[in-house]
Amino acid sequence: MNPDITRERQNATFDVEKLTHILDGGIEKTKRRREIESLVISDPDFQSEDLNFLSRSERYDAAVKKSAQMILKLREYGISDPEEIYCYKSCVHRGRSEPLDLHLGMFLPTLLNQASPEQMETFFIPAWNLEIIGTYAQTEMGHGTHLRGLETTATYDPATQEFVMNSPTITSIKWWPGGLGKTSNYAIVLAQLHTQGKCHGLQAFIVPLRSMNTHIPLPGVVVGDIGPKFGFDEVDNGYLKLENVRIPRDHMLMKYAKVEADGTYVKPPSAKLTYGTMVFIRSMIVGEAGHALAKSCTIAIRYSSVRHQSEIRPGEAEPQIMDYQTQQYKLFPLLATAYAYKFVGQYMNQVYHRITGDISQGDFSELPELHALSAGLKAFTTWTASAGIEVCRMACGGHGYSRCSALPDIYVTFVPTCTYEGENTVMMLQTARFLIKSYRQASAGHQLSGIVSYLNESERRLQPQSVSSRPTVVNVNDLASLVEAYKLRAAKLVEMAAKSIQQELQKRVSQEDAWNNSAIDLVRASDAHCHYVVVKLFAAKLGEIGDTGLHSVLSTLALLYALQGIQQHSGDFLQTGLLSVPQLSQVSQRLKELLAQLRPNAVALVDAFDYRDEMLNSVLGRYDGNVYEHMFEWARRSPLNKTEVHESYHKYLKPLQANL
Amino acid sequence: MNPDITRERQNATFDVEKLTHILDGGIEKTKRRREIESLVISDPDFQSEDLNFLSRSERYDAAVKKSAQMILKLREYGISDPEEIYCYKSCVHRGRSEPLDLHLGMFLPTLLNQASPEQMETFFIPAWNLEIIGTYAQTEMGHGTHLRGLETTATYDPATQEFVMNSPTITSIKWWPGGLGKTSNYAIVLAQLHTQGKCHGLQAFIVPLRSMNTHIPLPGVVVGDIGPKFGFDEVDNGYLKLENVRIPRDHMLMKYAKVEADGTYVKPPSAKLTYGTMVFIRSMIVGEAGHALAKSCTIAIRYSSVRHQSEIRPGEAEPQIMDYQTQQYKLFPLLATAYAYKFVGQYMNQVYHRITGDISQGDFSELPELHALSAGLKAFTTWTASAGIEVCRMACGGHGYSRCSALPDIYVTFVPTCTYEGENTVMMLQTARFLIKSYRQASAGHQLSGIVSYLNESERRLQPQSVSSRPTVVNVNDLASLVEAYKLRAAKLVEMAAKSIQQELQKRVSQEDAWNNSAIDLVRASDAHCHYVVVKLFAAKLGEIGDTGLHSVLSTLALLYALQGIQQHSGDFLQTGLLSVPQLSQVSQRLKELLAQLRPNAVALVDAFDYRDEMLNSVLGRYDGNVYEHMFEWARRSPLNKTEVHESYHKYLKPLQANL
Repeated sequence: MNPDITRERQNATFDVEKLTHILDGGIEKTKRRREIESLVISDPDFQSEDLNFLSRSERYDAAVKKSAQMILKLREYGISDPEEIYCYKSCVHRGRSEPLDLHLGMFLPTLLNQASPEQMETFFIPAWNLEIIGTYAQTEMGHGTHLRGLETTATYDPATQEFVMNSPTITSIKWWPGGLGKTSNYAIVLAQLHTQGKCHGLQAFIVPLRSMNTHIPLPGVVVGDIGPKFGFDEVDNGYLKLENVRIPRDHMLMKYAKVEADGTYVKPPSAKLTYGTMVFIRSMIVGEAGHALAKSCTIAIRYSSVRHQSEIRPGEAEPQIMDYQTQQYKLFPLLATAYAYKFVGQYMNQVYHRITGDISQGDFSELPELHALSAGLKAFTTWTASAGIEVCRMACGGHGYSRCSALPDIYVTFVPTCTYEGENTVMMLQTARFLIKSYRQASAGHQLSGIVSYLNESERRLQPQSVSSRPTVVNVNDLASLVEAYKLRAAKLVEMAAKSIQQELQKRVSQEDAWNNSAIDLVRASDAHCHYVVVKLFAAKLGEIGDTGLHSVLSTLALLYALQGIQQHSGDFLQTGLLSVPQLSQVSQRLKELLAQLRPNAVALVDAFDYRDEMLNSVLGRYDGNVYEHMFEWARRSPLNKTEVHESYHKYLKPLQANL
Repeated sequence: MNPDITRERQNATFDVEKLTHILDGGIEKTKRRREIESLVISDPDFQSEDLNFLSRSERYDAAVKKSAQMILKLREYGISDPEEIYCYKSCVHRGRSEPLDLHLGMFLPTLLNQASPEQMETFFIPAWNLEIIGTYAQTEMGHGTHLRGLETTATYDPATQEFVMNSPTITSIKWWPGGLGKTSNYAIVLAQLHTQGKCHGLQAFIVPLRSMNTHIPLPGVVVGDIGPKFGFDEVDNGYLKLENVRIPRDHMLMKYAKVEADGTYVKPPSAKLTYGTMVFIRSMIVGEAGHALAKSCTIAIRYSSVRHQSEIRPGEAEPQIMDYQTQQYKLFPLLATAYAYKFVGQYMNQVYHRITGDISQGDFSELPELHALSAGLKAFTTWTASAGIEVCRMACGGHGYSRCSALPDIYVTFVPTCTYEGENTVMMLQTARFLIKSYRQASAGHQLSGIVSYLNESERRLQPQSVSSRPTVVNVNDLASLVEAYKLRAAKLVEMAAKSIQQELQKRVSQEDAWNNSAIDLVRASDAHCHYVVVKLFAAKLGEIGDTGLHSVLSTLALLYALQGIQQHSGDFLQTGLLSVPQLSQVSQRLKELLAQLRPNAVALVDAFDYRDEMLNSVLGRYDGNVYEHMFEWARRSPLNKTEVHESYHKYLKPLQANL
């Protein structure tokens, strides 16, 4: 054990294990998670060469091997709880995506939700037993976010009772679905349904892609891998071009909408039922943002405690780089953010389960709010976390660029969350739509409930007085007061966005153009709303913490999170009159104090995330702090060192010397 | 040609070709650059498979091959002007780093600058003819920025007149030098000189690493590749462990410092002479930041003009995504930034050449300012550009993640500039040191000259009055007025940082601790200083533009750049009383107008950067806008599609199906 990091742990003022229980959601959950981790990590079937040393084809190969093993073992051990499956899977693939992700996460669930009983009988057991390996083919080369724009067609032919599936244009080629390129032999394909001469919009179809025997693509099916990406080397994201592929009528998913034998289209009873999965996945991503940031902070903070560099006081030994204020200012607010997002993730999970309970009772009332919340928070947290991972990486200096740090991997694995499951800017604008609608309802005298209830006050409180004359009452040392400030900022920015739309409308532009011409303000309002929610939930979480030591350190983190947000958006708080200029200096001063206060607990706070070395897979983030020996050992194993002299020397350099 | 992009070009209001000449520095330079590009691009010896489809070892191999060819051709064509060599090299390697970079960029120049005449005779010609391939080994595993911390030793043995070179600890192993792993047979090694029982600090030594005949490492030399990184796949960054390696006395570079035969150490006349290269490289990086951002903007803006998505007005066709205000707000300020940094790069280049002229006359007076400026601007521009590349990438939606977009490559190739040649935070603090020193001089009544002369006024103007009572005179529509605002902001933030140090000193902490406890404020001050310099230089550049059309569009860009900076740092401008709250709303409104105003010129503005398709190597950024066909074609060529069925199917999936 590196003595520096041992000393850090001795200085901690709280019980690390207790904090781990809180993060896991209880002592039993911690125990079970550790059991599963040990099960996977000690399993020789899941060992492999360092992925960084493999080609893409080898990485894909290794991932398929592990996924196949995983399916067998999950059954062998009888692990069937979705959360435990997720945990097991994350351990096997170390948090990376894998070729069966969409089979497990989209194909099977979509069957469960949208297949008729007869279809369940036909498809579910083969899919469960991986005779059918499926993916979910929605996105097309030319169409992502805007589902109505999808071009793939399914035209019903009553003569044979078949759908004829086609990719009529180059832009209609399905593009990106995970597992589509090489792994899947089936796909659920989203396509525009045409029957009896009319288009009825998007429906889902079960389309066989490859021979069940030989795995060779079926006639009319042009399928393959979309090529190398920024990360995701294990996944065969694929393309799919359908050329008059005929599938039987009963291959359209018919639990809700139907096409009868003669081609008559029968509408589904409600459109809201398909909301659920999307909201669930976005909620999950919020937790993942906390997770990705927590891993990055673990690596950067442990490394900062063992890395010595430069000098603060001349003549003295080189200090730990964590003693530099600038380093603390980079890392500690991100550490606080990681905690915040983990707590928000827990909250979203609870709300999701509560509301889906209501939905199954036929109560959809909270769905729009949850939808808006999950959209905005997904965007808010993934943007911040992505940028934060890179800050952590660069805080490790040169070694952060080495693949042995694991930080490049964390980044490329996480950053796609900014784009998939709803592009972030589009997500922010969806939340804005809900906020503006709520604001207008409040203005019209309706009493709002739920998270937007603060907009009830805004009309009364913010409008009549001049902003700068309003007395400032924020106490920068009091979290509750800061939550209030974030709330009023959100209210004010929603109001400003609404007014921008109004002003545009007065210029006689259309509603839609007024919306687009105010989009910058709308995104800003959503951002402020989400920020408020996060601060509020962090503060609320503190109320659940009984242990004094824990409460104290988490309060420091929460205050740091809130104050740093104010500093970064000081313009907003000054502009809305919520803070005065002298208060802003107080905020700066207080922030510095909080950094110093957190310093002795920093390593313990990342230890509490409880990432085993095998899960982090980072030389810089090792629990024992013995960074350099292992970096040297790792480098010596790398592929270019398999021979002392690279063949290029004999091929090019030696002849060149002779020619000059 | 895609009709959308043709239409964009027809709408431009200025002469693209003329702008290209300005960016290149004159019509002749444009012509010569294009000649060189054509020479390389049409040369069959420089064709290769798409690098994205190769393994790392294959990429290294391809790079060595091209570099060897390049050396031959440069001599064949008689290209010897450093700028032209740089241009040729960039074309050959498409802007990527390559294995001979340090031989050409550090080993040869260091010989030229620091070798004695006898050493030149021994080493230069063999190095010029690549019998000696050298690198520059400075950074160690445990030591980067802080040179005095380097641990490698060179102990003089007068008995044999040799230096004994050692890596005494694991942290002393040389780590990161490009070309060290496999390519070089020599290195200039920085080591602590020990002679006659005393350490004389760092000296540079010429150390043979590998046999000239077999390329096998020499006895005592442990050398290899440091393993895969975030990008830089072509470069064999290496490690070097020296175990009692003996080199003759005349292998220490002895133009300045010397060790005599008996071991007597002779000091160099001045330490300032080694400043030059560092300053030059940092100045170059500023231009590179403009370059990287310009390439990214070219890709994202062209793609935004041919990509259609969603709807603004219901029922109408999907609009070009560049019509969304949020998309404009992401891309156009970055476009303005790219122009700003290109102009700053030109300026730095001129200043560097002017000042090196002075230095060769023995006049060092401007060196500290140039040193401070290049340090801060390097950090300021590389941080912004790195984040900006990612914004461009994500503005391309899912396809920005594909390697065919080239954006992931641009990012990983550029982002290391934040860390190498001086870690950015350290750079900002170096600039801050100069600013604080200047501020104190001004406070003591000295009249400052040069770029920091604004600190002369700060004492008088900013101190006595209350900030909020000072009348605000900024005109948000006038660039000169905005330059003034940036200047006053910088002055105020330098003053605040200086005061923070003073306050710390009053708490009886040491100078050094006071500095560290104010580091956040110091970085903020440097940032404001650099921002001021960039705005000022952009405005100055406008003064050189005679053409009305060009002047108009560049003025719009400059105004956009300045106003967006104000919006992003609105807290600073409000806090320092330079802007009022109503003015901030004006800024927002004006920004939106500027976006709309730039919209018709966006494609022409990136066309003016004049990147040939072969140089961009981006399917999304193609000049003809025919994105989708070429993306499909690229994907089909990718390695996983070499076979219809991947071997993992037979190895794992088929057996799994049998087992379930």
